[in-house]
Amino acid sequence: MSSTVGQVIRCRAAVAWEAGKPLVMEEVEVAPPQANEVRVKILFTSLCHTDVYFWEAKGQNPLFPRIYGHEAGGIVESVGEGVTDLKPGDHVLPVFTGECKECAHCKSEESNMCDLLRINTDRGVMLNDGKSRFSINGKPIYHFVGTSTFSEYTVIHVGCLAKINPLAPLDKVCVLSCGISTGLGATLNVAKPAKGSTVAVFGLGAVGLAAAEGARIAGASRIIGVDLNSNRFEEAKKFGATEFVNPKDYNKPIQEVIAEMTNGGVDRSVECTGHIDAMISAFECVHDGWGVAVLVGVPHKDAVFKTHPMNLLNERTLKGTFFGNYKPRSDLPSVVEKYMSKELEVEKFITHTVPFSEINKAFEYMLRGEGLRCIIRMEE
Amino acid sequence: MSSTVGQVIRCRAAVAWEAGKPLVMEEVEVAPPQANEVRVKILFTSLCHTDVYFWEAKGQNPLFPRIYGHEAGGIVESVGEGVTDLKPGDHVLPVFTGECKECAHCKSEESNMCDLLRINTDRGVMLNDGKSRFSINGKPIYHFVGTSTFSEYTVIHVGCLAKINPLAPLDKVCVLSCGISTGLGATLNVAKPAKGSTVAVFGLGAVGLAAAEGARIAGASRIIGVDLNSNRFEEAKKFGATEFVNPKDYNKPIQEVIAEMTNGGVDRSVECTGHIDAMISAFECVHDGWGVAVLVGVPHKDAVFKTHPMNLLNERTLKGTFFGNYKPRSDLPSVVEKYMSKELEVEKFITHTVPFSEINKAFEYMLRGEGLRCIIRMEE
Ligand SMILES: NC(=O)c1ccc[n+]([C@@H]2O[C@H](COP(=O)([O-])OP(=O)(O)OC[C@H]3O[C@@H](n4cnc5c(N)ncnc54)[C@H](O)[C@@H]3O)[C@@H](O)[C@H]2O)c1
Ligand SMILES: NC(=O)c1ccc[n+]([C@@H]2O[C@H](COP(=O)([O-])OP(=O)(O)OC[C@H]3O[C@@H](n4cnc5c(N)ncnc54)[C@H](O)[C@@H]3O)[C@@H](O)[C@H]2O)c1
Ligand SMILES: [Zn+2]
Ligand SMILES: [Zn+2]
Ligand SMILES: [Zn+2]
Ligand SMILES: [Zn+2]
Repeated sequence: MSSTVGQVIRCRAAVAWEAGKPLVMEEVEVAPPQANEVRVKILFTSLCHTDVYFWEAKGQNPLFPRIYGHEAGGIVESVGEGVTDLKPGDHVLPVFTGECKECAHCKSEESNMCDLLRINTDRGVMLNDGKSRFSINGKPIYHFVGTSTFSEYTVIHVGCLAKINPLAPLDKVCVLSCGISTGLGATLNVAKPAKGSTVAVFGLGAVGLAAAEGARIAGASRIIGVDLNSNRFEEAKKFGATEFVNPKDYNKPIQEVIAEMTNGGVDRSVECTGHIDAMISAFECVHDGWGVAVLVGVPHKDAVFKTHPMNLLNERTLKGTFFGNYKPRSDLPSVVEKYMSKELEVEKFITHTVPFSEINKAFEYMLRGEGLRCIIRMEE
Repeated sequence: MSSTVGQVIRCRAAVAWEAGKPLVMEEVEVAPPQANEVRVKILFTSLCHTDVYFWEAKGQNPLFPRIYGHEAGGIVESVGEGVTDLKPGDHVLPVFTGECKECAHCKSEESNMCDLLRINTDRGVMLNDGKSRFSINGKPIYHFVGTSTFSEYTVIHVGCLAKINPLAPLDKVCVLSCGISTGLGATLNVAKPAKGSTVAVFGLGAVGLAAAEGARIAGASRIIGVDLNSNRFEEAKKFGATEFVNPKDYNKPIQEVIAEMTNGGVDRSVECTGHIDAMISAFECVHDGWGVAVLVGVPHKDAVFKTHPMNLLNERTLKGTFFGNYKPRSDLPSVVEKYMSKELEVEKFITHTVPFSEINKAFEYMLRGEGLRCIIRMEE
């Protein structure tokens, strides 16, 4: 590896030149890491809705050309000045949000919303110098959420890299970088269902299924899946769902249906849809006295959460979580260990695999709503 | 005492014959306690907004004639069939909500919202036979929230009586029956501020001042009082408030003012106003990542709590509490002990004292907004 240290690396990357247009495989130049940065050789990456959302760029400021990708596993190639936590050869998971270990959030036991490295989807450059490490013939290509894993090599702030067990298979644990840890942590770290309790999960995409998996791991006695698409239920059973309700099948609010099914409400609910009506139902379906509802889905910017305050005064708790309350560097290695100890099953989230050259197929699967996670192998 | 056991007791009671009209001192007959009931000799009682609210009967079904009163201290005179936890001579605090010890709520560690004995302001009779224990010349007089402490003797369900340390002075600890424990518990049991943290208290009536007292006991470093009435601040200082803000003094939302004062928000907030705008501000003024807001005030029935869901996703927690999450029988004795050990200061809540014959003066003080608690001495 010493041959590349301090040098520009030329490698393949899938570049998005325009909103919604297929990615183009290009040879890019990847500059060496600067202070507090790490250059990582990506071995496996996967596609998440967030990549697609910003690639479609329907709601936000478009920022192109850009290299997307944020769920991945790789190996450290070289480190920049001041990096002491990582060295070449370490196995890492890049994370779209970071942990500086110095701000008030990082110092708080409860928060993972680092002031310095909190997700920023608008920024396309590195913090150190406000510039990109990617270029083609001198023309810079923007980064995405500090990770840009759709490249054989990428440069990432040390605070956005979780050092994991080198024995963990990167082609599996790469999916723990984002949505799956988000859903899992929402249940295990925030909702915290007791053994034997009842849990409702709203939305049975990858995030919701991971929330159900968390409820299964916690030993919930009933896991009620809620989705507008009844096809999701078959899949959900593999993740522990014991029952299914589709709000479209009832002409009363689904929270009332759930309350009737559970003698007053579930003990815990986790909302993984991003839709405001599901957020409200998820809150109102928990039992008074002790019920806890956790919101995970990212809402529309004009959405308004509304409820009668008596629902709160009757001793319900409403919380939201970001990345399942996991601190990327401190906590993600333990999620990988949960997989290594066979407590957490990751394989069932992986429904497709494609070589890097066919990355656009991964986009097609997701746009068609086919499967959960498509692993992209960087080595053909 | 044996002379009265099993007999009807004739004693004085302050009867409300009509909505909003002064109470009338009457001789009433108090029947012996039935199964699971206890007859209590009241020594001291105090007046709370809830008595006044139902006596004014502006919003609800009027139920008259009725004997109000629910904050009190007394001594057991006799017990009905099946009562094993209490015996004549025990010192007790009547509570407007109960603890049956058998329902799902009583069995849950988290809830105090007993299914059997949860507050019921519409019921004016005892559960056992659906009848009143009070009468005048055979005409029944309604009970209020199962306590009716504006009578020298009253009959109460055993589940609504906390047995307390007989050394505790009843003329002081009687105020721990309702609002003061509500505010105190909202902070100590639900908001749970860590030592050194910042706390905002919305509404500086008796309940809010008790919430501030809780923050003081917990060792909060800053206690920000928020009230529309700036006169409340002088009083609040005695309860630990270190700063004061009046929303009327600013032309931006008070949550923004508080966020600026505290570098992003307070660690905890407790809302004790019952007004929806204060509830929303109390939620939005807590710090992202770890802030917890607790609602205590009883809202208008048409009130709607509204917020942008991002405020939740940024890892804020919203909770409500009922009676400060204290279980009346299990937990209230320990609140009395907090007073006995001088951790909790109760005297500063007591601003007036009147003999029973002048109970209408207590109503006048409250209607004029004078003072916090007026103790009514049953023995002249
Ligand atoms: N907070 C975080 O850190 C974080 C991280 C990743 C993803 N997310 C969010 O989690 C959410 C779920 O992500 P995903 O990848 O699983 O999405 P997805 O689109 O694959 O799944 C969402 C599911 O919700 C269902 N749904 C939509 N509206 C519903 C409603 N009203 N009631 C019931 N079901 C409904 C859909 O049918 C779909 O099956 C998204 O909002 C995403 O932005 C959050
Ligand atoms: N949940 C319970 O178990 C329980 C028990 C007792 C009382 N309460 C409720 O607690 C609340 C407070 O009770 P209290 O006896 O202290 O009442 P109070 O009327 O003495 O005090 C309320 C204070 O809030 C202030 N206020 C009103 N609107 C405000 C606003 N928008 N912003 C800031 N301050 C505002 C008022 O000026 C007043 O000083 C009431 O709603 C009462 O019903 C609840
Ligand atoms: Zn940080
Ligand atoms: Zn993602
Ligand atoms: Zn009960
Ligand atoms: Zn009261």
